Amino acid sequence: MEKSSPCILFLLLVPSILFSLASAADADPIQDFCVATHPYGSLTTNGYLCKPNAAVTSDDFFSSSLTAELTTDNSYGVNASFADVRFFPGLNTLGISMARVVLDPGGVVPAHTHPRASEMVFVTEGLLLMGFVATDGRYFSKVLGAGEVFVFPRGLMHFQYNVGTKKAVEIVAYNSQLPGLLLAAPALFGSTPTIPDVVLAKSFLVDRKTVDNIKSKFG
Amino acid sequence: MEKSSPCILFLLLVPSILFSLASAADADPIQDFCVATHPYGSLTTNGYLCKPNAAVTSDDFFSSSLTAELTTDNSYGVNASFADVRFFPGLNTLGISMARVVLDPGGVVPAHTHPRASEMVFVTEGLLLMGFVATDGRYFSKVLGAGEVFVFPRGLMHFQYNVGTKKAVEIVAYNSQLPGLLLAAPALFGSTPTIPDVVLAKSFLVDRKTVDNIKSKFG
Amino acid sequence: MEKSSPCILFLLLVPSILFSLASAADADPIQDFCVATHPYGSLTTNGYLCKPNAAVTSDDFFSSSLTAELTTDNSYGVNASFADVRFFPGLNTLGISMARVVLDPGGVVPAHTHPRASEMVFVTEGLLLMGFVATDGRYFSKVLGAGEVFVFPRGLMHFQYNVGTKKAVEIVAYNSQLPGLLLAAPALFGSTPTIPDVVLAKSFLVDRKTVDNIKSKFG
Amino acid sequence: MEKSSPCILFLLLVPSILFSLASAADADPIQDFCVATHPYGSLTTNGYLCKPNAAVTSDDFFSSSLTAELTTDNSYGVNASFADVRFFPGLNTLGISMARVVLDPGGVVPAHTHPRASEMVFVTEGLLLMGFVATDGRYFSKVLGAGEVFVFPRGLMHFQYNVGTKKAVEIVAYNSQLPGLLLAAPALFGSTPTIPDVVLAKSFLVDRKTVDNIKSKFG
Amino acid sequence: MEKSSPCILFLLLVPSILFSLASAADADPIQDFCVATHPYGSLTTNGYLCKPNAAVTSDDFFSSSLTAELTTDNSYGVNASFADVRFFPGLNTLGISMARVVLDPGGVVPAHTHPRASEMVFVTEGLLLMGFVATDGRYFSKVLGAGEVFVFPRGLMHFQYNVGTKKAVEIVAYNSQLPGLLLAAPALFGSTPTIPDVVLAKSFLVDRKTVDNIKSKFG
Amino acid sequence: MEKSSPCILFLLLVPSILFSLASAADADPIQDFCVATHPYGSLTTNGYLCKPNAAVTSDDFFSSSLTAELTTDNSYGVNASFADVRFFPGLNTLGISMARVVLDPGGVVPAHTHPRASEMVFVTEGLLLMGFVATDGRYFSKVLGAGEVFVFPRGLMHFQYNVGTKKAVEIVAYNSQLPGLLLAAPALFGSTPTIPDVVLAKSFLVDRKTVDNIKSKFG
Repeated sequence: MEKSSPCILFLLLVPSILFSLASAADADPIQDFCVATHPYGSLTTNGYLCKPNAAVTSDDFFSSSLTAELTTDNSYGVNASFADVRFFPGLNTLGISMARVVLDPGGVVPAHTHPRASEMVFVTEGLLLMGFVATDGRYFSKVLGAGEVFVFPRGLMHFQYNVGTKKAVEIVAYNSQLPGLLLAAPALFGSTPTIPDVVLAKSFLVDRKTVDNIKSKFG
Repeated sequence: MEKSSPCILFLLLVPSILFSLASAADADPIQDFCVATHPYGSLTTNGYLCKPNAAVTSDDFFSSSLTAELTTDNSYGVNASFADVRFFPGLNTLGISMARVVLDPGGVVPAHTHPRASEMVFVTEGLLLMGFVATDGRYFSKVLGAGEVFVFPRGLMHFQYNVGTKKAVEIVAYNSQLPGLLLAAPALFGSTPTIPDVVLAKSFLVDRKTVDNIKSKFG
Repeated sequence: MEKSSPCILFLLLVPSILFSLASAADADPIQDFCVATHPYGSLTTNGYLCKPNAAVTSDDFFSSSLTAELTTDNSYGVNASFADVRFFPGLNTLGISMARVVLDPGGVVPAHTHPRASEMVFVTEGLLLMGFVATDGRYFSKVLGAGEVFVFPRGLMHFQYNVGTKKAVEIVAYNSQLPGLLLAAPALFGSTPTIPDVVLAKSFLVDRKTVDNIKSKFG
Repeated sequence: MEKSSPCILFLLLVPSILFSLASAADADPIQDFCVATHPYGSLTTNGYLCKPNAAVTSDDFFSSSLTAELTTDNSYGVNASFADVRFFPGLNTLGISMARVVLDPGGVVPAHTHPRASEMVFVTEGLLLMGFVATDGRYFSKVLGAGEVFVFPRGLMHFQYNVGTKKAVEIVAYNSQLPGLLLAAPALFGSTPTIPDVVLAKSFLVDRKTVDNIKSKFG
Repeated sequence: MEKSSPCILFLLLVPSILFSLASAADADPIQDFCVATHPYGSLTTNGYLCKPNAAVTSDDFFSSSLTAELTTDNSYGVNASFADVRFFPGLNTLGISMARVVLDPGGVVPAHTHPRASEMVFVTEGLLLMGFVATDGRYFSKVLGAGEVFVFPRGLMHFQYNVGTKKAVEIVAYNSQLPGLLLAAPALFGSTPTIPDVVLAKSFLVDRKTVDNIKSKFG
Repeated sequence: MEKSSPCILFLLLVPSILFSLASAADADPIQDFCVATHPYGSLTTNGYLCKPNAAVTSDDFFSSSLTAELTTDNSYGVNASFADVRFFPGLNTLGISMARVVLDPGGVVPAHTHPRASEMVFVTEGLLLMGFVATDGRYFSKVLGAGEVFVFPRGLMHFQYNVGTKKAVEIVAYNSQLPGLLLAAPALFGSTPTIPDVVLAKSFLVDRKTVDNIKSKFG
């Protein structure tokens, strides 16, 4: 199982999950559309600059990025593909994006927040426990089967967990072109560089040894 | 086929389609959530009033409204169920909603606009032609298979058409809790009361007889 | 009357009407002003880039575009001039625009929507019937004389019709720098390329011959 | 000229001018419309509560408030009528309003700001000098004739002045349902209660006698 | 030091810290002000209803809530007082709030996010290390002395840590009337009810014993 | 006292006060951050363009601009330093900014408005009278001591005045990256070029001599 050691796996997940995201209340568009000129990495304003109108074609409003084959051979037993502005430039200024998530039995989308979006989940197959924690400390959760939907209010801590015996699949929508994904554990224990041990130990009320142990998983 | 005469059928469709909707850039929430107190029909502010916080439960963030059995025995060969604030009060202030649409082979979601949302479509099965017209008169369209996505910018005229030989199904997301649905033909030719013939004749550059003929379909 | 055949006429109207528009809730400005650098056609972000501050003059906040002589020798008996960001670059980021519309007796601003704005109409002379259809199918309408005002909520289908015996003139305001104009009939039956006949026939519950007939008016 | 003594006149102007207004970037509506339930004075949320949908009629989208006869027999030689949410409840949530202003030759709309709107002015008759001062101290101004338009960016100090020999009339649009009007002189020197003399003296770099003299005009 | 056992202490902190908050982009006000009618707990719309205009007094725009004596005799060595809409009803609709934080030497504001606001920190005394992690995993941090400022973009994970030898104090501003506070550790390990062990174990890549150990600190 | 003649002094104040500002409801960010590429003066869109992501460092989120030594040897007995997007490029798109103001005994921040922000004031030392005038002419005011806060709703006319016997200091927060500052007296009587005397005389109901006298202070 060396190939799926957490540290390495997380790196593998990064392209599809760490940069995930979901945004909630982007500004309104002030033209019909503004297809982003360049792929992810060339942000130049609050959003992207627009491709010249005359160069826009039907393909700019289409994406097959969610059809990617998703392997779940990793620590979380989960994988995702994204149709947000990074992979679907036509979404620029439109305030919406989607993702497709596959979970093995027992697989988990680790606890996380989206800084810029509410998220609505539609289960296409399987049995999923999903829950979130509000700012008053209350935990809300539900088990969903195929065809059912759940909503995570913007910025709150949430997760999904496959409690069934088969693969589970969900289609996720966000009200932002780039919702952002903050996976709590890797953000806290695996950032570059890392947050000082003392801060984490005090935040989690544990000793530094426990901190170092968790950090070693996300190195 | 008297049961599926257009006029009657449209009335049948009304509960699920005419009031459809999809919204695009609702104001940001200013609390974690604000579950709507009452079902559709009791709008009292820009959105709904909130259920008292202590009365909110996990079920408020969950909906099974999209699992409804959808019959397509009507003029359009299409039907839809909605998970928007009318049917899912927990969406109030969250700026997002969803719908599930089923289309027979040859079935069509008639040309329409959403006054308050961009729309993103995920095809779960079948083969669908979808297109929209921008304000400069350009028509953009694409045929989508399972797993592919398309986006309709806010307020533009669009449709979906099942060009395959089997049933097609799509999951639709909107960036509004209540996007609104304006089906062009029934809005123009079947409103209550109706738009004067002369206005429609001049708008479509046809004679009144043609207007009356179309009106008779949406009476 | 060949000169005023609908097909040709529509092309003539295009510069002033098809691209009309009106927007509703643009993002707030985050500086005093941001005069657009270039004329319409050079959109480069969500809105336009700004002219350097030092180059801005009083003329940038002024426009005479609404004083244009408007001929109404066309199928609709109507014409319009616009003071939106395309013709008045100083409006960039300010969230407002205007138009001036002239209608012959019997003239009609054909049924249309504005994807990005609510519209408020002030009648300066004449007698105008104006109406709109809401998403629940209800039709609201009123006859207005000089000095009276009417409002069309964002994205709803509406029209204006001169029911008087003299020329009518209206001043129109939109809460967007570029509201967008979707004239229903030409968008549906005269786009480039055109929407497939079968989709239109199914949307309007008419046969293809009727579709082709209407298409021929907007070719 | 006792009837037009400034103090008294200002009180007369209050109903039509002091509460004037113009708003710039209201939140988007999240339903078709939300007609305000009560007249001005019963604000109960961020905006007004909505009249029940079933009670809404065509008249709710119409107003004749701008047709009021306007007398200009006052210190400023100006008067105005308003079509904002105070007088036109149907504008609630729609983000737009209008006013009609009449100015005698030599009449002036005194220097003022609108806290919540950009303003666009259309001159229907006469010759008007209008100007504004930006936050960097630059003054922009222009003389406008009939049919010409000018724009005042949100929150900046501006005025209008009839430089012609005849009555001037303008139609004004704001991108807010309630833009707010802060007339500089009466706000500074005529508030209830008044700003302390020392503050005004130091703000305007004048002695208290000058302050008291100006205050006496707006008592 | 039994009184400062983490579990108990956290409960003590709750009134001042767990419900902290900071919001980022509330909707614009559409009247001068809308003083909230009731204290925290009576949310009834997206924000609060307004006190009648005539009942508003100068005191409604004033708060002494930040002057509260703050004891830091707890596990974190930190305490805070808040001037947000819960304690300062006049902030309703105004999109801004503040807090005052006191940290013992070695004290830490534990890692947390604000779902609805960017946060700007002004250090009034002491020496503070503050840092945040972006959604791409990068960690940004800085040590600040008196008079210096730092900004945490909306929704990102951040903390403050007193690295000096004396008490540190900071004044914090948020661009929301109710930014919300999600302390990562208590939200994850101390919610009511708690998130299932298996989900936390899989999220942090640790065994259940470690999870239970951390949970015991936040019971 | 030639050095503190009002005219000269105002010029001296300009860099720190005239361009002050505070903004209230900027659009939401649609990425984690967008550090402005250039210093003030190179505005190119609604806000600034973003520095490439890879070039962003911890220093971009930090500013020491508020630590500047502030001399109050001028007509107003006041000075200020700013941490807004002009001096702190990392604030771009984040919708927040701060300032620090020092007032001599008897010193006054002259009456002014912020076109784009609500403002919240925290008094760190001294005794300050602060007040504002609403659009209905009502004046609200309060004397604040250390640790107390006051709020000025967006766009309303307000001032601060040191009524104590010692220096007063305040930390100010705005919900905009660039709120804008319109000092009433210099904007009205000291713009470049100046507003015509007749307009000012009619606005303040004074004679031209008084106007010229005030103008001479702000020449």
